[in-house]
Amino acid sequence: MELNRFEQGVQKLAEVDGTAGENVINALKDIAPDLGRYIVEFAFGDIYCREELNLPEREMVSLSSLLTQGGCENQLEVHINGALNVGITPNKIIEIFMQCIPYIGFPRVLNAVGVARKVFATHKEAVR
Amino acid sequence: MELNRFEQGVQKLAEVDGTAGENVINALKDIAPDLGRYIVEFAFGDIYCREELNLPEREMVSLSSLLTQGGCENQLEVHINGALNVGITPNKIIEIFMQCIPYIGFPRVLNAVGVARKVFATHKEAVR
Amino acid sequence: MELNRFEQGVQKLAEVDGTAGENVINALKDIAPDLGRYIVEFAFGDIYCREELNLPEREMVSLSSLLTQGGCENQLEVHINGALNVGITPNKIIEIFMQCIPYIGFPRVLNAVGVARKVFATHKEAVR
Amino acid sequence: MELNRFEQGVQKLAEVDGTAGENVINALKDIAPDLGRYIVEFAFGDIYCREELNLPEREMVSLSSLLTQGGCENQLEVHINGALNVGITPNKIIEIFMQCIPYIGFPRVLNAVGVARKVFATHKEAVR
Amino acid sequence: MELNRFEQGVQKLAEVDGTAGENVINALKDIAPDLGRYIVEFAFGDIYCREELNLPEREMVSLSSLLTQGGCENQLEVHINGALNVGITPNKIIEIFMQCIPYIGFPRVLNAVGVARKVFATHKEAVR
Amino acid sequence: MELNRFEQGVQKLAEVDGTAGENVINALKDIAPDLGRYIVEFAFGDIYCREELNLPEREMVSLSSLLTQGGCENQLEVHINGALNVGITPNKIIEIFMQCIPYIGFPRVLNAVGVARKVFATHKEAVR
Repeated sequence: MELNRFEQGVQKLAEVDGTAGENVINALKDIAPDLGRYIVEFAFGDIYCREELNLPEREMVSLSSLLTQGGCENQLEVHINGALNVGITPNKIIEIFMQCIPYIGFPRVLNAVGVARKVFATHKEAVR
Repeated sequence: MELNRFEQGVQKLAEVDGTAGENVINALKDIAPDLGRYIVEFAFGDIYCREELNLPEREMVSLSSLLTQGGCENQLEVHINGALNVGITPNKIIEIFMQCIPYIGFPRVLNAVGVARKVFATHKEAVR
Repeated sequence: MELNRFEQGVQKLAEVDGTAGENVINALKDIAPDLGRYIVEFAFGDIYCREELNLPEREMVSLSSLLTQGGCENQLEVHINGALNVGITPNKIIEIFMQCIPYIGFPRVLNAVGVARKVFATHKEAVR
Repeated sequence: MELNRFEQGVQKLAEVDGTAGENVINALKDIAPDLGRYIVEFAFGDIYCREELNLPEREMVSLSSLLTQGGCENQLEVHINGALNVGITPNKIIEIFMQCIPYIGFPRVLNAVGVARKVFATHKEAVR
Repeated sequence: MELNRFEQGVQKLAEVDGTAGENVINALKDIAPDLGRYIVEFAFGDIYCREELNLPEREMVSLSSLLTQGGCENQLEVHINGALNVGITPNKIIEIFMQCIPYIGFPRVLNAVGVARKVFATHKEAVR
Repeated sequence: MELNRFEQGVQKLAEVDGTAGENVINALKDIAPDLGRYIVEFAFGDIYCREELNLPEREMVSLSSLLTQGGCENQLEVHINGALNVGITPNKIIEIFMQCIPYIGFPRVLNAVGVARKVFATHKEAVR
């Protein structure tokens, strides 16, 4: 049976973000349910399900975009977790951030590393 | 003999951007020579020479950061060329841009695709 | 008797933001009093008093601009309150945010919805 | 017969942007056809077809977001045209831009007015 | 006789930008005359006339802000000219741009240097 | 004995930021030590040690750039402290922020003033 865009998105979101992504969507149900639905259908059902890039590559792009944009600390937190989930090592996550220095300068990179510190600590907890 | 940061940067810049990078540096000689020197020494000698990410991965990050920042059409042009040089296919470059849609919206992605169209055309010329 | 720009601005600010706007201005008195004065005189006395757009339309523009810019959570809070004050419903505020998705992506919209959740809760309290 | 998301999007896009929108989509066919498809399906089929805001209100939000983001002159051009198409007068378009001054400063507003000058001139031509 | 805000702004604008500033204001007369008036009254009559910073210091701040914001090449052109007019040397203008590298990265700085090259050439012409 | 870039950077960082800068670098040691090293070597050893601008002028540029970029409250805090350390008065710091209003609007300026309030209070404590 073929899955529709929403069902595909739910699967992909779980694959990338585990329960953290699901929490974001659920938290929107009382105030902006369609926002959650579009994130599932469009971001994860359409875009993340495309070929040509694998999941670690997609998270690499997402992290670079969120770091550069700035003011996206909550989303960085979710996607640093996602990056770990799809097998990017902490060292490589930091290196992705380092590669952004020449393009966007030190402050945004410092902010992203600050979020990573928090996520890495929690992840280590969870693994124990 | 060990290369210094500038020499390492020149080598890496040539590896990534071919003559296009060299042109950017040369064009700065009359007005801001140290800006060119820092791009070579710091961006290419320090950052691009680091381990943990290979060159295609580094260009993936650079393209995502430049697209997201906006107003960097000239730099996108150089790095789309660089991405082709280090073996990223045109399809994959477009896919990197597509992955940015959920994070930064359609306009920045449309702008980047517009630059890619121009670079891909020139590259095809050059290959013939 | 004709009001000067400052007096007009004070009236308009009260009309839009109630006491929240006044609090912002007062909080500036010890550190940057002229910043508060310019917000009153220029933003509210000059711009908000112009014709061609009514107050709900002006708040619609302000919310879209603040959401898009990012990192303006405090100002979004004041203006979501202002939007409610001039008669924009919570549903319509969320819809203004939804309309921004194609132009600036999901993260900035998620941030704005997060601020709205907080403001809507307080407003409901106040109405009881 | 119920229209699917793509068909709905095509209708809405034509309603807002006339042939200009169609041109944007067609121009993507050789290089990033799915980008065009997502603009039609998601931006116009999903978002623009929602209730709670009418088309002039949606264009008001789009113009404010594009102006604030900066570096979106091509998209501003399409949407200033779209705003005229859905019945926003040139004076009101300028006023939307003026309302952004306190939030994002003069430079972005000057850039948007520069694009409007060009679009208004062409539109007058077309109307004759 | 005391000058009003508009008259003070006209004087200050002429002092900083010479005829270039006047041209910007005049060019707005047919499409957004009040935008020009606010630039004169508020930006130049209010802000630029304040004490605590002299004109070269004000231009130093303006250049740094315009470079960082990005997509403000037209405004950078006017203010690089203004900086030269109030006695900042070309070398010092370039140095202001260099100081921005750690905070916003190389691309925005390269863009600003590109504008400076054009302005410096014209200025040299004019001086001959 | 000639100092190398790192040693020069450490000296300059101490001169500008006192122990606050050192704390930033130390806090990076466990997660991204090379990020700290590059800030010392490149930002402070290379850029801040250049001639053509003195330290108060460099801090003036840094504050303007950080304010304009937005989302850099932590870095603004360090550099408002740095500005005080190199002899810029609180009044002048506020005036630098005021000069940014025409270029980037009120919200970013309000955010920067909010950070300044916090730093000024701590500094006064420290001076007693």
